Amino acid sequence: MSAPLLPEIAFFQELAEVAAAETLPLFRSAASVENKLDTGFDPVTQADCLAEDAMRSLIEARFPDHGIIGEERGTVRGESRYVWIIDPIDGTRAYISGLPVWGTLAGLRVDGAARAGMMSQPFTNELFVADGRRSLLIAHGRAPVEMTTRGNRTIEKATLFTTSPALYNDDKRAAYDRLESRVRLPRYGCDCYAFAMLAAGHADLVVEPGLQTYDIAALIPLIEQAGGVVTTWEGANAVDGGDIVAAATPDLHAAALEVLNAKTA
Amino acid sequence: MSAPLLPEIAFFQELAEVAAAETLPLFRSAASVENKLDTGFDPVTQADCLAEDAMRSLIEARFPDHGIIGEERGTVRGESRYVWIIDPIDGTRAYISGLPVWGTLAGLRVDGAARAGMMSQPFTNELFVADGRRSLLIAHGRAPVEMTTRGNRTIEKATLFTTSPALYNDDKRAAYDRLESRVRLPRYGCDCYAFAMLAAGHADLVVEPGLQTYDIAALIPLIEQAGGVVTTWEGANAVDGGDIVAAATPDLHAAALEVLNAKTA
Repeated sequence: MSAPLLPEIAFFQELAEVAAAETLPLFRSAASVENKLDTGFDPVTQADCLAEDAMRSLIEARFPDHGIIGEERGTVRGESRYVWIIDPIDGTRAYISGLPVWGTLAGLRVDGAARAGMMSQPFTNELFVADGRRSLLIAHGRAPVEMTTRGNRTIEKATLFTTSPALYNDDKRAAYDRLESRVRLPRYGCDCYAFAMLAAGHADLVVEPGLQTYDIAALIPLIEQAGGVVTTWEGANAVDGGDIVAAATPDLHAAALEVLNAKTA
Repeated sequence: MSAPLLPEIAFFQELAEVAAAETLPLFRSAASVENKLDTGFDPVTQADCLAEDAMRSLIEARFPDHGIIGEERGTVRGESRYVWIIDPIDGTRAYISGLPVWGTLAGLRVDGAARAGMMSQPFTNELFVADGRRSLLIAHGRAPVEMTTRGNRTIEKATLFTTSPALYNDDKRAAYDRLESRVRLPRYGCDCYAFAMLAAGHADLVVEPGLQTYDIAALIPLIEQAGGVVTTWEGANAVDGGDIVAAATPDLHAAALEVLNAKTA
């Protein structure tokens, strides 16, 4: 099979721009929230749908044979060798609360592996992008800066992100609590922004339960190409989602898996 | 006693600028973190101290008879009629994790009441400021926009912020959990940024345990002058800190106090 052909960084910038044209005008606008489900609270905004349509149009125009999996509009050509996995607003709860820690995600899966991807935060004007070789931060349209995860931190000195301990059930909550009790600084509530901070060297661990493929596929290349490791709690490929652990280094990743999977009496 | 004389908005902008000159260059720099205490983790950065010195110098030069209470450098002239209460980096944990939800706080207490104040977030270039009459948001140096809290939300439809449920002990945790179980959307991890979002109409409740005066004094005018209410859990003046509840409306505030203080069997 031929080596994968990956898009230029400019294509990710275009994706970020067409999404931002829909998400930014409605950010901090009270009018845009609707409920996806009658039970519970699963907000989805007009911006979310409009942005996904814009991103899909751009991908269809440039790469008509690529597949697309999107949070809002489902899957087309999911059996293609190249599949884009997109989430226009990851962190809708942050979005509707006015917090600048949501992001627009687009990842490219090739032959089942996440090879390139981006997280864009248009309010802070930050684009985190992995092109297959490097992870880069393009802030305020300035020159790209290469990102590397930070090394040499034990679990005891780690900063650990999770969206909320309340999202874990039963045994998983016990496993998460076991890990949280070991780290120096646990932080809650950041969704994709936490993974971007891990790639950029400001955090050491991100642990999340029950992610979908569109929550994680775009972020795997960002972390791996910055020197980190992302897998499921079982150590498997994270591209399809599940319970996820991301770490700044291979050693820290192995140590976190050991704590999460420890047999208890 | 004469009516209080409050500074122009331009003075708050100057305070924000001298603080940002110290905080921004070290934001996302790994070199700046030291531990305040050997036990536990209470980070304080070089930026925190330098910014407080710069803010104090500006206040001393302009208002030499005013008192100052600062998180890092203590109190001078605390018995003055006018006392500035400042925290150069509220949300140090967010700051050292790379997250743009920390802020620079400066409040002016006059005759024991918080009358004017600001929260500045220099990375996103946002200044939330209350001048004694109105709450304003000055974003990206553009024209000020008046902020108002949002009305007509019951507890069941509320967005509730707290920094972390783990900060509550014993009875207070039970009271907090009782409130959280009633709301639609609980969010963790934002410190002062949560209060700013309440003032700006994107959230309904902020509840925190054990705040210091420098954590809250600057934020009270922002919320009150936008239409909200801030008190302790006992309904008293929040300016000296303690367990705090802030709400978008008087009705919601009363309802939240009732839930927090409910007698249990």
